[in-house]
Amino acid sequence: MSTKLATKQDTRTALLEVGMDMMLEKGYTNTGIQEVLSALQVPKGSFYHYFDSKENFVVEIIRHFEKEYSTQLRATLQNSARTPLERLRDYCAESKQKLECQNCRKGCLIGNLSQEMADQSEVLRHELVGVMRSRCNMFSACIEEGQKFGDITKSHSAIDLAQFFLSAWSGAVMAAKTIKSIEPLQNFETIILNDMLKA
Amino acid sequence: MSTKLATKQDTRTALLEVGMDMMLEKGYTNTGIQEVLSALQVPKGSFYHYFDSKENFVVEIIRHFEKEYSTQLRATLQNSARTPLERLRDYCAESKQKLECQNCRKGCLIGNLSQEMADQSEVLRHELVGVMRSRCNMFSACIEEGQKFGDITKSHSAIDLAQFFLSAWSGAVMAAKTIKSIEPLQNFETIILNDMLKA
Repeated sequence: MSTKLATKQDTRTALLEVGMDMMLEKGYTNTGIQEVLSALQVPKGSFYHYFDSKENFVVEIIRHFEKEYSTQLRATLQNSARTPLERLRDYCAESKQKLECQNCRKGCLIGNLSQEMADQSEVLRHELVGVMRSRCNMFSACIEEGQKFGDITKSHSAIDLAQFFLSAWSGAVMAAKTIKSIEPLQNFETIILNDMLKA
Repeated sequence: MSTKLATKQDTRTALLEVGMDMMLEKGYTNTGIQEVLSALQVPKGSFYHYFDSKENFVVEIIRHFEKEYSTQLRATLQNSARTPLERLRDYCAESKQKLECQNCRKGCLIGNLSQEMADQSEVLRHELVGVMRSRCNMFSACIEEGQKFGDITKSHSAIDLAQFFLSAWSGAVMAAKTIKSIEPLQNFETIILNDMLKA
């Protein structure tokens, strides 16, 4: 019984991970459920055993992705061996390296789905807003710590700086994907980390 | 003869404008050519009289949109009645008002297509890079003028500030579309125009 459950769980996780990878590369509309199932040799009928619809599948992909990603993010943004500004620098360096390894393809699942689906699905939009708020709060806590510690500017509130930092970074990732170069990310680092955010 | 030509030109322009509006709302993949044709009661066969393919149709949409938009943009960014920093403020105010009138839907055609299609079509990506470069040069010229005039910071080169300004703005537009509020655009204005860019 427990082996059967474990296998079911494995299939569900495998569907989420293959689906996530395809969505990252091709977007929501361009990703066919059949293609995800074929990649894993899972019969079509099984899909609805795990998920109610394509929309529900993507909600679960976002949750699965976010669970893993928020753990990594927390480790970076709460790393007490680094000052708060250095932690933001680490975040940028890690994201930049990841994008470079992918030849500036794919980008960010949350950003991609936001741009494509915010006007198409209230269910997905609601889920994406939740993720954005949660990330913004994590960055805000790090920035607030930096404002108290003294290495981050107090010229704006931590939450406003966090929201600005994240939206400007997602714009830089989008530009990097388009020109297929990490130069917009380096420009972001030079202007934001080496100058604007500094206390 | 000239009337017939004028009509053909009108049909082509109408196809581009209806197509543009649908692409803005729903993206490339979600927009069906048949839907564009039905909206204008143009027979299906006619489409290939005007365009080689859906990809070519979108290249022509981008060019048509950019021709109109760059004229407006030039008027704003070269407005000698305003200082260079004020012109950037006018650009933000105009874009913000437009997005607000659309209830934070649609956003920017170039940003939307970049996010959706940069990994899917080299033809579209190439076209989008051209538009981004051309816009960046227009903003850079305005910023350079502000640096000489004395109302914009010289802490970074005009081209780096222009690239940063545009990618950060596109990220703020994406966030506004997702949360369905212009608050990220107001936050951008507070941090960038009232603070970071000031000399």
